[in-house]
Amino acid sequence: MTRAELILQIKSKKTFLCVGLDPDLDKIPKHLQETEDPIFEFCKQIVDATAAYCVSFKPNNAFFEAYGISGMISMEKTILYIKEHHPHHFVISDAKRGDIGNTSTMYARAAFEHLKADAVTVAPYMGKDSVAPFLQFAGKWAIVLALTSNEGSSDFQLMEAHGTELYKQVLEKVSAWGTEENLMFVVGATKATMLTEIRALVPDHFLLVPGVGAQGGSLAEVCRFGLSKDVGLLINSSRGIIYASNGADFAEAAAVEAAKIAKEMSAYF
Amino acid sequence: MTRAELILQIKSKKTFLCVGLDPDLDKIPKHLQETEDPIFEFCKQIVDATAAYCVSFKPNNAFFEAYGISGMISMEKTILYIKEHHPHHFVISDAKRGDIGNTSTMYARAAFEHLKADAVTVAPYMGKDSVAPFLQFAGKWAIVLALTSNEGSSDFQLMEAHGTELYKQVLEKVSAWGTEENLMFVVGATKATMLTEIRALVPDHFLLVPGVGAQGGSLAEVCRFGLSKDVGLLINSSRGIIYASNGADFAEAAAVEAAKIAKEMSAYF
Repeated sequence: MTRAELILQIKSKKTFLCVGLDPDLDKIPKHLQETEDPIFEFCKQIVDATAAYCVSFKPNNAFFEAYGISGMISMEKTILYIKEHHPHHFVISDAKRGDIGNTSTMYARAAFEHLKADAVTVAPYMGKDSVAPFLQFAGKWAIVLALTSNEGSSDFQLMEAHGTELYKQVLEKVSAWGTEENLMFVVGATKATMLTEIRALVPDHFLLVPGVGAQGGSLAEVCRFGLSKDVGLLINSSRGIIYASNGADFAEAAAVEAAKIAKEMSAYF
Repeated sequence: MTRAELILQIKSKKTFLCVGLDPDLDKIPKHLQETEDPIFEFCKQIVDATAAYCVSFKPNNAFFEAYGISGMISMEKTILYIKEHHPHHFVISDAKRGDIGNTSTMYARAAFEHLKADAVTVAPYMGKDSVAPFLQFAGKWAIVLALTSNEGSSDFQLMEAHGTELYKQVLEKVSAWGTEENLMFVVGATKATMLTEIRALVPDHFLLVPGVGAQGGSLAEVCRFGLSKDVGLLINSSRGIIYASNGADFAEAAAVEAAKIAKEMSAYF
């Protein structure tokens, strides 16, 4: 999906919500456990229920890989289902990949050619040749980790070198390796005020912002400091939406939560 | 596999070679392409031919994932085969994983419980809670990226912060999160002289050293600066061994290359 197509979706639907798919068999409603493929069934119903309120879905690879081959089959089916039934949604394979050049090429093929995702999240530690292979596919995107929202983000990302935090150096260096048409950054929402400094470095890149929703009402803060002239934000919520209820009404409950966030977002258009 | 068991294998076989399994359908001998599962068949024959000369196998996840579900099945079969027929070999899932805590736990389950690997390679960028879940499984290991051997390693790993390169800060911080019984580091062999400084920081940890073999004769250098009192090295060679020939004799050719390296290693016992 091109940048223009993504922006068109966002503006026409007045939402920049991304729904994260982290299917956990311990949390999936009991009545789905008896179906042939509970993980797919859960994801499918979440996708159908929330599609109207979001522009993107983000399957988290780990939550499928943990179930081995059957989990991988559920992931393929989920992405295929989204592509078939919601073809205008931007699909992010949240895989946090990154390796030497020829190996990263293989990961890019897995995500883009095999899974047909639009984007894949990429870890920057191994440098340019680990990121560049993800930028070679027309209409596909690398979403590189800059500042994450977890506690451990302070261990290295906030470390200062030459007077600047590492995550800012990642933003500066990596943004030179691609364009605003094939490169986004992950920027954790727990540090919304940092978004001003981040926008000074990457004014036009899309930012994928995790940690909004279940974790608290920072959406207004993120929008205040993070919105660009083309919106430039994909804000993700996973658990707050998909596990809003663990009963038979889980899909409706997910839709209610997604709709709440979408409504808040619509005020920015 | 415990550290004591690994050291026992190394000392009794007088080798610390790890054979990297990067199966690429474009490079696999033609006569295997007609078998039911060419990737598994290739890996199985490489494993059987080289097992006597190495103590470890390192399947590179990307090279299996690139073929989708069928590739994942080949990877599972390969690891299962090693565990069944070569139970004393240390199996490293070279996955370069790392995510927030609950997601890393899912990756750890995928590698340790589902695939039954002994170790998984982990990227450090997201900090402590992204690494810690890999350290919670008895007899299992996290092998954290410190200094990689690719060109891009200079982009961030060699960046100085507070007077020290980032990779050294990774070594210092991460080594405090685990022990020598559950934590190793990836240290690229192209910078063998740096091993002296690395050994000052992590004198007893095992180091997984890629980039020896096909890329040139730096084995002597790595041993000179990297060997610890318990050997403390796993030296990997992938392409130099597995693609030594692309004819019907590929397995024998791989064995010859592995034997050469093992012979050189035996001089250090």
